[in-house]
Amino acid sequence: MNDFVFHNPCKVYFGEGHLGKMGPEAARLGGRALVVYGGGSVKRSGLFDSIAASLAKAGVTVYELGDVEPNPKVTSVREGLAIVRRRNVDVIVAVGGGSVIDAAKAIAVGAFYSGDPWDLVLDSSKIIASLPLIAVPTLAATGSEMDNCAVISNPDTGEKLGFASKLMVPTVAFLQPSLTTTVPAFQTAAGSADIFSHLCEVYFSRDRDLTMLDREAEGLMRTVVEFGPRALRRPRDLNARANLMWAATWAINGYLDGGKTQAWSCHAMEHELSAFYDVTHGAGLAVLTPAWMEFCLKCAEQWDKSDDVSLEHEALVVLDKLYAFGVNVWGIDPSLPKAKVASKAIKATRRWLFKELRLPSALRDLGIEKSSLADMAHAAVMHKGGLINGFVPLSERDVKKIYKSCW
Amino acid sequence: MNDFVFHNPCKVYFGEGHLGKMGPEAARLGGRALVVYGGGSVKRSGLFDSIAASLAKAGVTVYELGDVEPNPKVTSVREGLAIVRRRNVDVIVAVGGGSVIDAAKAIAVGAFYSGDPWDLVLDSSKIIASLPLIAVPTLAATGSEMDNCAVISNPDTGEKLGFASKLMVPTVAFLQPSLTTTVPAFQTAAGSADIFSHLCEVYFSRDRDLTMLDREAEGLMRTVVEFGPRALRRPRDLNARANLMWAATWAINGYLDGGKTQAWSCHAMEHELSAFYDVTHGAGLAVLTPAWMEFCLKCAEQWDKSDDVSLEHEALVVLDKLYAFGVNVWGIDPSLPKAKVASKAIKATRRWLFKELRLPSALRDLGIEKSSLADMAHAAVMHKGGLINGFVPLSERDVKKIYKSCW
Repeated sequence: MNDFVFHNPCKVYFGEGHLGKMGPEAARLGGRALVVYGGGSVKRSGLFDSIAASLAKAGVTVYELGDVEPNPKVTSVREGLAIVRRRNVDVIVAVGGGSVIDAAKAIAVGAFYSGDPWDLVLDSSKIIASLPLIAVPTLAATGSEMDNCAVISNPDTGEKLGFASKLMVPTVAFLQPSLTTTVPAFQTAAGSADIFSHLCEVYFSRDRDLTMLDREAEGLMRTVVEFGPRALRRPRDLNARANLMWAATWAINGYLDGGKTQAWSCHAMEHELSAFYDVTHGAGLAVLTPAWMEFCLKCAEQWDKSDDVSLEHEALVVLDKLYAFGVNVWGIDPSLPKAKVASKAIKATRRWLFKELRLPSALRDLGIEKSSLADMAHAAVMHKGGLINGFVPLSERDVKKIYKSCW
Repeated sequence: MNDFVFHNPCKVYFGEGHLGKMGPEAARLGGRALVVYGGGSVKRSGLFDSIAASLAKAGVTVYELGDVEPNPKVTSVREGLAIVRRRNVDVIVAVGGGSVIDAAKAIAVGAFYSGDPWDLVLDSSKIIASLPLIAVPTLAATGSEMDNCAVISNPDTGEKLGFASKLMVPTVAFLQPSLTTTVPAFQTAAGSADIFSHLCEVYFSRDRDLTMLDREAEGLMRTVVEFGPRALRRPRDLNARANLMWAATWAINGYLDGGKTQAWSCHAMEHELSAFYDVTHGAGLAVLTPAWMEFCLKCAEQWDKSDDVSLEHEALVVLDKLYAFGVNVWGIDPSLPKAKVASKAIKATRRWLFKELRLPSALRDLGIEKSSLADMAHAAVMHKGGLINGFVPLSERDVKKIYKSCW
């Protein structure tokens, strides 16, 4: 077991009656706020106005950065930084999905760096301080409202890269489930797939770790499996929205890490889909996740046939994890052979993603051309230093094989 | 669903290699530390010396308060406060079980109150500030290392009372599982029962709440059910100790609350056992918990027979929760009738506590006299304002009935 530090000082207001505390919380952190948001829905819904009113009432001056795009671009970050510098902004308020919060994080740490913010994405050791950030997520998905990372795209280089720093954890977050009831069905589904993928990225590990955290991850997976489809059927079901929202936050706020080495294999493969084709992150993950599981199961079966005792042992570890996933998340009969349980679990995952959540089941349905697969595989592995060294290690050839299997 | 705030800024170092960071962490908080501990084992094991050495190396002056008793007394708190005042202590380091950490919390908040610290136990609104506290638990049980509450006994009044304040959450905690490998078998078992009880106190609620948190509580219950007995069989199994330790922390650090109204029924009943007889907290809870579950099940069966539709509904809520507990924690066949699952779950809980953990199964085995039951029932209900208004509401008569049923 690896040593680790758990420290997440973010203060979360959860529920329907808290947003009026935005003003006092922001005023505590500074007198000049930059409110960052994406499309116009935050304005149309009146959410922007109620936040601006609460800030004004508390004596906080409001500046605005709108039109932050999905898969947020470093150009938006630069624009935000220009405002921060010109207006001496001292607190950032991010209102929107994960893209908006991620852009706001990059602006917050960029404020203490004299060079271009893309440098910080490439090398997070250059992050020395951060403006305080208040997050108001309007979608249950990325968990950016309580985590330490952000993903930014660079149109000049065609890259989409994640970076992390404990300084990027928001200071305060307001989680109001009703804000997510108007999210379109496709985004609700893609958000559920994103949450599920975050859980898988940490859960599927060959480390000898705290099994307690496996039980906790399974509990969150079951939550998303239950409430994702329910939110699709009944968009205004506040209980479903609340469960999805709180699960999204806890899937990635550090609780489940427990010092595990992590490779985030599906995210590494998905980031290239978004970088090359600007696809919706959760939809990309939905296609890749079961294909990746299938590849892992096949790997384990091959390792098991090898003469190498240590590989045989690793095969068992992989199979055991897929078996636990099947039994504890999907309720598959534990008396079946392990490989059978694993393969039923992958089938159940597919059914959930593609039938219940009605997400596209193939890369070609996301507009991805077969001719790009090799380039994307090359980029995915290159961004991880030549090997995606996760639950099963993935070479460039392996990634290409996975892309092909779900094209 | 109730609105709530989640905010737990405690920084946790988990693992075997962190204790050397004690000095730098304390030095960040102040230059004069009071190290609080209980019996001599902390000295004999060398733990005190290594902590004192780390503090000294960082330039922190060390003062000592030893001999803090299990069920810590306000007299120990007063003694600590005298040292804090005389020596201008600015950081408290608690090394020991929950009792030691609880006493340290009372000292930390008592430092900013001019009157007697018992006043703060009786009325936590009088708490205005706290010295920073560093916790080093040596037992997986109370979770005091990351929670906001403490339980203090007053020998003058014969009371044992809990109190809470967000100011009592430790600033830093060092969780080193190996420190718990020398805990005697009885304390390991009682600690496991304590963790399990904390989970039950929050889980068993009739609130319409975040079911996600039920799944999480069940995951922690399964963890304790698995690793408590394993730690008894193999005291030096670090993985078992680590799982118990991290589960103990998360059982009560606020994660599972989700705005639920909570009565802590078994704790209310147990505190009188300890106040009247100084029994080990976890051992008292072990006897009471299944007896209380049995009482709740009987209540639900009675309500179900009533003509009152709303009572019938409440009966179903109680039964559903006991059913979920049986299926998700104990793996009982979900196709059985609900009441059957509930009764099998209570039986499984008893078997775990009394066979696997080998804890005493009756109040008389804890040295409690039958003649005290009525007085203890009166005190338990009186301390809750006349009614323990939890999963099922408990009157003085009900509490006496529960005490009798497990005497």
